[in-house]
Amino acid sequence: MSPKITTELLKQLRQAMKSPKYVQEPVQAYIVPSGDAHQSEYIAPCDCRRAFISGFDGSAGTAIVTEQHAAMWTDGRYFLQAAHQMDNNWTLMKMGLKDTPTQEDWLVSVLPEGSKVGVDPFIIPADQWKRMSKALKSAGHDLVPVKENLIDTIWADCPQRPCKPLITLDLSYTGVSWRDKILALRSKMAERKVLWFVVTALDEVAWLFNLRGSDVEYNPVFFAYAIIGMNTIRLFIDGDRVMDPAVREHLQLDSTLEPEFKIQVVPYGSILTELQAVGAGLSPREKVWLSDKASYALTEAVPKAYRYLTPYTPICIAKAVKNASETDGMRRAHIKDAVALCELFNWLEKEVPKGTVTEIIAADKAEEFRSQQKDFVELSFATISSTGPNGAIIHYKPVPETNRTLSMNEIYLLDSGAQYKDGTTDVTRTMHFGTPSAYEKECFTYVLKGHIAVSAAIFPNGTKGHLLDSFARSALWDCGLDYLHGTGHGVGSFLNVHEGPCGISYKTFADEPLEAGMIVSDEPGYYEDGSFGIRIENVVLVIPAETKYNFKNRGSLTFEPLTLVPIQTKMIDVNLLTQKECNWVNDYHQKCREVIGAELERQGRHEALQWLIRETEPLKVQ
Amino acid sequence: MSPKITTELLKQLRQAMKSPKYVQEPVQAYIVPSGDAHQSEYIAPCDCRRAFISGFDGSAGTAIVTEQHAAMWTDGRYFLQAAHQMDNNWTLMKMGLKDTPTQEDWLVSVLPEGSKVGVDPFIIPADQWKRMSKALKSAGHDLVPVKENLIDTIWADCPQRPCKPLITLDLSYTGVSWRDKILALRSKMAERKVLWFVVTALDEVAWLFNLRGSDVEYNPVFFAYAIIGMNTIRLFIDGDRVMDPAVREHLQLDSTLEPEFKIQVVPYGSILTELQAVGAGLSPREKVWLSDKASYALTEAVPKAYRYLTPYTPICIAKAVKNASETDGMRRAHIKDAVALCELFNWLEKEVPKGTVTEIIAADKAEEFRSQQKDFVELSFATISSTGPNGAIIHYKPVPETNRTLSMNEIYLLDSGAQYKDGTTDVTRTMHFGTPSAYEKECFTYVLKGHIAVSAAIFPNGTKGHLLDSFARSALWDCGLDYLHGTGHGVGSFLNVHEGPCGISYKTFADEPLEAGMIVSDEPGYYEDGSFGIRIENVVLVIPAETKYNFKNRGSLTFEPLTLVPIQTKMIDVNLLTQKECNWVNDYHQKCREVIGAELERQGRHEALQWLIRETEPLKVQ
Repeated sequence: MSPKITTELLKQLRQAMKSPKYVQEPVQAYIVPSGDAHQSEYIAPCDCRRAFISGFDGSAGTAIVTEQHAAMWTDGRYFLQAAHQMDNNWTLMKMGLKDTPTQEDWLVSVLPEGSKVGVDPFIIPADQWKRMSKALKSAGHDLVPVKENLIDTIWADCPQRPCKPLITLDLSYTGVSWRDKILALRSKMAERKVLWFVVTALDEVAWLFNLRGSDVEYNPVFFAYAIIGMNTIRLFIDGDRVMDPAVREHLQLDSTLEPEFKIQVVPYGSILTELQAVGAGLSPREKVWLSDKASYALTEAVPKAYRYLTPYTPICIAKAVKNASETDGMRRAHIKDAVALCELFNWLEKEVPKGTVTEIIAADKAEEFRSQQKDFVELSFATISSTGPNGAIIHYKPVPETNRTLSMNEIYLLDSGAQYKDGTTDVTRTMHFGTPSAYEKECFTYVLKGHIAVSAAIFPNGTKGHLLDSFARSALWDCGLDYLHGTGHGVGSFLNVHEGPCGISYKTFADEPLEAGMIVSDEPGYYEDGSFGIRIENVVLVIPAETKYNFKNRGSLTFEPLTLVPIQTKMIDVNLLTQKECNWVNDYHQKCREVIGAELERQGRHEALQWLIRETEPLKVQ
Repeated sequence: MSPKITTELLKQLRQAMKSPKYVQEPVQAYIVPSGDAHQSEYIAPCDCRRAFISGFDGSAGTAIVTEQHAAMWTDGRYFLQAAHQMDNNWTLMKMGLKDTPTQEDWLVSVLPEGSKVGVDPFIIPADQWKRMSKALKSAGHDLVPVKENLIDTIWADCPQRPCKPLITLDLSYTGVSWRDKILALRSKMAERKVLWFVVTALDEVAWLFNLRGSDVEYNPVFFAYAIIGMNTIRLFIDGDRVMDPAVREHLQLDSTLEPEFKIQVVPYGSILTELQAVGAGLSPREKVWLSDKASYALTEAVPKAYRYLTPYTPICIAKAVKNASETDGMRRAHIKDAVALCELFNWLEKEVPKGTVTEIIAADKAEEFRSQQKDFVELSFATISSTGPNGAIIHYKPVPETNRTLSMNEIYLLDSGAQYKDGTTDVTRTMHFGTPSAYEKECFTYVLKGHIAVSAAIFPNGTKGHLLDSFARSALWDCGLDYLHGTGHGVGSFLNVHEGPCGISYKTFADEPLEAGMIVSDEPGYYEDGSFGIRIENVVLVIPAETKYNFKNRGSLTFEPLTLVPIQTKMIDVNLLTQKECNWVNDYHQKCREVIGAELERQGRHEALQWLIRETEPLKVQ
């Protein structure tokens, strides 16, 4: 992978930063966040501005270009990838390391006195704007909104914003109608005494209306906003996709409805002026509810006195707690996904020794097996298919330049998932097709112990996920090993594979307490730069637990793995496991054998079934 | 313990809240925080305003009185105590429970539109003022400073502010001279480009000048402020105590000194006007550094543009990392403390069966044994000597009304500590003088497992203490038990027994990363309301650990127990311990036997030595 040469682009950007065509006064620095106007993690090609200017196309990163410098902040998952993809014009800022300056501190250290720092107000979230603006101001600089996106001005062949057809989801998938979701939202609004709610996150719009799209790869969402009033519903969406009869019927656009459920369809681009109009019509103590991560532009559209900002919206929180239809769907999706992976691993075992399987071929084969399953829609993220040293690049995606051949001598790590109409999957398995070294087995076993420690953890109702993170690290820590990423993220139901407001991470972001019905991943890892990567990931459902004393009736929670794919026992050093951990592995494999075995049988996949039975042999207890 | 009758006092306070003598406009609510003007946790009698108005005298709590209501917010340690001490005029707000409103939310729910909420600006920390003022403003109310403290206006026999002699500490105790501490502080100030630093916390003044006092019970501090400039040192302190020749020599008040080390002694009460003068003399970009927990009054004295506020001051952070002289002193103090406790427990074992030992007698006896040790100064907090149901009152202090007699049938919990000139101690042991029930042993053993899990934890350099909190709970959680307090707090070196900026808690306050030399407590517990309390507490020192892979040279840390007092093996259900946990207990007891045994021998305390040897018999491994 050779880095993108950005000398000319940076020159053009620096010109734009001074051009009266775009800025009233020159800006001495320009910030290029990685998000879109909806603060999406996965973005459409037209929104990949940070990748365009820097070459670094990981999912998280912020670029800042000054007259002299170009710097990129990203986290531990991407240190290697960013270093590979960026040329010498760029300085990599490794977030999470002690000596790495924050963006604000760095700006203050490099900017001449009284500088202006520009940013697209539609791309920067209001909370980030506030923090950065304050820090810059206290050092004598100014953060200024630049209406025209400066990257777009130099991006000659910028792709068009997608506008693909919509998918309607009926009650059997969603469990709750969009009308009932609107009702529940309005009741939350009444509780907080707000009159309007602005839906800015794409997955929240999709969830609210029980619609899905494909405007963004991997995330079944579509470009839209919504403004919900106590008696109005406005959906901001472009294209003739709402002319599709199925969509019209689903949204009851042509029915005679109570006025408070009548959806007004409005052009996507009119959100700012419509919201300004809402803001202008408010009386004192009438409030508009927005996420504090909504864009600065939309937040500013509502006069400050009328804003009601929260880190998580009521939709985000409601969406996280899956109902019975959704968990049933997630279970079905995970069974199909496991079938596909059993097929894949069986196939790999036969093909890898021939020396013809590359990372890309393996990834494609995984997609092929998944696509044979019912209700398959697309992948849920770019497959991480990595062998040997590529495994240490935490969010690696094989490309022809880096593509390695799977062998009998290297660890293979596959982190992949799919969108099915009934659910979203995300699973990582790490395996060896030959004989793993003692050190590889040792590291794998510590990671497994961490995985089990989280999966089997019992904790009181209302515990926040970040309190479980250290359980995943304890076995690694005992030997002086660690990994530079969180342990788990929320998973959507046929929605974004990463979603809030819960997670399991050492970063103490404002996560919401875990409750039964929430779904998160459990994915500790260990990475040895230049050698290998290990990660063991299941998607797990928060369920009530039975405990002896039940926290004085506060209630007990634990996790149930939805992912049912064998964990390679060849990689386990059984001597490092406790009896309890051995039992966990054996029970888990027993369940894989029963549930996935039955489905393999039903689908007539006999060879994969034999593979499953072989791979789920109980560990020999010491 | 009968509650304080507060009907008349509340009536008087409500009159004061409307009296033009004290307020320009009536205030509809008045906040009585628990701190003093230095945001101290332990306060002088003249500052116990919240206890005076409510009767509740725990160490943490905030009272708010409105025309109709009186409410008290406190945390899990004090739920029972507050309920016992307050009369029916008061509503207890149990912080940490899901349904308990915040002070702001509660005020908004009970106040009439456009209310004014008063508070003493010297008592409320600036960060709390800011949060509360913002919340009130957004609901149409105003937080207003009331210069005259309204409690003082109705407190007829309010005691005088203490002004006791000072103790000077030489280098053998402190390791670093006050001049070098000032130099280090100035270098931190230069790094952050601030010109002035205001020392507002009493323990920070004491630490900086290597002085101690006894103005506040248990905390060896004295009422003072300091303002440090790059070339000036101003110490705000009252009384003739700086006329003491030892103090004058220690501070070199009569020596010819470089001007930048010349200490100007200024009256305590002049801090506000002096700081206002400093603020008025600043040019743009000249800053004054204050803790964001400094009082609102002092913070406001510096114009906003010149303020540099941080959650922890450089003194707080430097003070937390103990140098070799300080850790040596802490070790010595803990050895002496253990000697005293071995004497006590030996004495209790003989006396309790006679039925004559009450909680108060036991606490007094503990103090008597401690006071026999060299360099003993005072206790480091009010001894928690509690038996049976009193043990479930987490910060219980025995008083005649509640005083129970220790018996063969109830669990006894003793949480106590002392100030020695060379260090501060804080230790909790829980024991049974008869035969504990299986359930009591079960709970004790889970608490012990949690204690060991933290004490033996290995973690990478730079880990924040809150990431270790769940280790202390895991064994309890597995059975559906928990405790409603943090697991550990920082401990001063002959200073406050609770100090920042590190700790071990599920509350994700902004704790600083742990580093070698920091000292914290490790004190999980379990409390069964109406029955018993269990807590096992050691003070532990953060030390480098040896690990197989050492976190890629990031460095490994673990804890070394400074407390060396036997843990009652009779209370342990050995079947619930792992082999590793058994070994930990046996190794710990071996060390107690060696180190404390030698000191008991040296002090000729033969009977206590026999007790120690008996109590440190190795656990029988299963």
